[in-house]
Amino acid sequence: MKKVRGGICAPRGFLAGGLYSGVKRSGRKDLTLIFSEVPATVAAVFTTNQFRAAPILVSQEHARGGVAQAIIANSGNANCATGPQGLKDARRMTEVTGRALQISPKMVLVTSTGSIGKPLKMDKIVPGITNLAQEISRQGGGDAADAILTTDTFRKEIAYLVDGYKIAGIAKGSGMLHPDMATMHAFITTDAKVPQALLQKMLKAAVDDSFNMVTVDRETSTNDCVFVLANGLSGVEIKPGTPAAKTFENALRAVCKFLAMEIARDGEGATKLLEIRVTGARDTNSARTIARTICGSDLVKAAFFGGDPNFGRIASAAGKCGVNFDPNKVELKIQGVPLMKNGCGLPQNMDKAAPKLKAKKIVVEMDFGEGKGEAVAWGCDLSYDYVKINAKYHT
Amino acid sequence: MKKVRGGICAPRGFLAGGLYSGVKRSGRKDLTLIFSEVPATVAAVFTTNQFRAAPILVSQEHARGGVAQAIIANSGNANCATGPQGLKDARRMTEVTGRALQISPKMVLVTSTGSIGKPLKMDKIVPGITNLAQEISRQGGGDAADAILTTDTFRKEIAYLVDGYKIAGIAKGSGMLHPDMATMHAFITTDAKVPQALLQKMLKAAVDDSFNMVTVDRETSTNDCVFVLANGLSGVEIKPGTPAAKTFENALRAVCKFLAMEIARDGEGATKLLEIRVTGARDTNSARTIARTICGSDLVKAAFFGGDPNFGRIASAAGKCGVNFDPNKVELKIQGVPLMKNGCGLPQNMDKAAPKLKAKKIVVEMDFGEGKGEAVAWGCDLSYDYVKINAKYHT
Repeated sequence: MKKVRGGICAPRGFLAGGLYSGVKRSGRKDLTLIFSEVPATVAAVFTTNQFRAAPILVSQEHARGGVAQAIIANSGNANCATGPQGLKDARRMTEVTGRALQISPKMVLVTSTGSIGKPLKMDKIVPGITNLAQEISRQGGGDAADAILTTDTFRKEIAYLVDGYKIAGIAKGSGMLHPDMATMHAFITTDAKVPQALLQKMLKAAVDDSFNMVTVDRETSTNDCVFVLANGLSGVEIKPGTPAAKTFENALRAVCKFLAMEIARDGEGATKLLEIRVTGARDTNSARTIARTICGSDLVKAAFFGGDPNFGRIASAAGKCGVNFDPNKVELKIQGVPLMKNGCGLPQNMDKAAPKLKAKKIVVEMDFGEGKGEAVAWGCDLSYDYVKINAKYHT
Repeated sequence: MKKVRGGICAPRGFLAGGLYSGVKRSGRKDLTLIFSEVPATVAAVFTTNQFRAAPILVSQEHARGGVAQAIIANSGNANCATGPQGLKDARRMTEVTGRALQISPKMVLVTSTGSIGKPLKMDKIVPGITNLAQEISRQGGGDAADAILTTDTFRKEIAYLVDGYKIAGIAKGSGMLHPDMATMHAFITTDAKVPQALLQKMLKAAVDDSFNMVTVDRETSTNDCVFVLANGLSGVEIKPGTPAAKTFENALRAVCKFLAMEIARDGEGATKLLEIRVTGARDTNSARTIARTICGSDLVKAAFFGGDPNFGRIASAAGKCGVNFDPNKVELKIQGVPLMKNGCGLPQNMDKAAPKLKAKKIVVEMDFGEGKGEAVAWGCDLSYDYVKINAKYHT
């Protein structure tokens, strides 16, 4: 598996682009289009929020068929809590895209991200889509990656060459972000041919270990979704139960994990990436819950922003999450420095750990000595800028 | 029911005091003693965190008897994750207190609050207890209320005169604070005589509607507890199932609710008190979950800090908490201004709501149109100072 250029357009037969249509006040790109020259097998995962945005409802319907050929995505407005008009607007986005690309609207997936509760500026989006459909190309992967961003500070894209086929993905963060069988937007393309059921199963598993283990602020957004489009144009076919399927699954996981860590690293206001490794828990679910709870604790996050190896807050966060364990077996390391043994603090080691917190990546290792449950979660620190961004930016 | 002076010492037969023993680096008071001249019926509620602090373990043991006569509480050090030595130190605090007051150590409840994972300075605490036992008086309620505080910015105390008896309470906040069948420290005294089982039942119910509906940062501390001591010295006896029992329960609820709101108002870095009123949910539990989730959302809290009537974030927070509802029935008001109807945003009203967010108290009303479930939760906004306090203060 080798990293290659080209982003979302690296796999064969994918064209993409991004432009400014007039939705965002900032004047930055706000409309992304991804197109497969041939119908592609689609797998999708959606937010579990009760307030699902209109485009999510439409994409759920369109993804049900298992085949899609395009993704149209706007940023700057979430088209959520917009009532019947919102639903009409989301459908219209697929219709306009379908017409421009000469495919059925049912082959178009649609997403929106941005402020909630305001009508979409369709007078900007409709001509935007028509123009964008003329502009898409094999070189447009970067623009497509840029135009889905909101408060993100950098582009998130990756592409790998695997055994004769490619797989690539783009994603956006960077607030209202918490694992709950759903993530923020991530779009993945591959020119491998993969049966739909297998693709969906692999995506679900990959998302559980990647996007679902990221938290920026414990908020599950109304618009989260991950799509994979597999168009088969490489000629490589992935059959269930084969070594090739294992290889493909690993590649898909690598794409998801890379994008998930990029999202955490670019969390709103983040100055540091946090990686929480839990081992020795009773089972995987316990390990996941503990890792995500620690990663989501404002007190832990603020301590790391302040460069404080505050093992007590980590212990307290682990203890509050409803998972049973024996506190007397807990061992804890921060940046490799032991700070708890047999559930008892080692405050004498704090001076050793503190200077290591200046790094851009902080690793916490916590062992519970009870079983084989393991999990890794990613997040970021809590800084003044998170407050600033969210006190001033109207989502 | 009438508010009276005297704080925790207003009920008959209670003496109290607080002093600086040498635990806190700030030099502020850090040791509280509350004493009932006669044995008192005790009811208690403890944290559900798996990392229970040593004093919690000892107090759980001592409260089991249903009778207690004193509470010794230090602030500045939580005596948590301190291993066998911590447990020994907590027991010793009850022994030293018992000796000084000439009562059995089993009649003494002990609590600690502050940093986790560091040994208690027993060389400061032991002489501190001995001195404090000489100093306690009917005038010491204020000092007792002060000496349990950590990052709190003001004293939290209340006393009521009810039908011939009094009931009073003190509490501390103000971070690592989230409802989970437990709260931060709150100590309540009354000179009514109340059967233990009734007192415990009433306390549990009162805590569920007050302290358990407060969240500052969704962190359930390792040291949370609420104690009620009822010493009967007023001569008034509360019998189960009588109108007097109802009156007493209302008084107990009033004390808990007052202290809970004070804690929210004094949340770390808070500039505003948030009150989230949920109505029309399927049942009470659904209403509680929704109210607490909204109250605990960093995005909602940051929006209110910024004066932004961001109904979309409130809707998203309600939708993420695992409670099922029909989004199309949701109505939402902020400071009385309608911002959602039939699940659809009313962005045209935002300009009307925005100036009302300058108030010190923000009221959000959310109706789900599905049933009779109601709940109120309290919290605070998320400010730069929360980050500052928790990046610099080592808990």
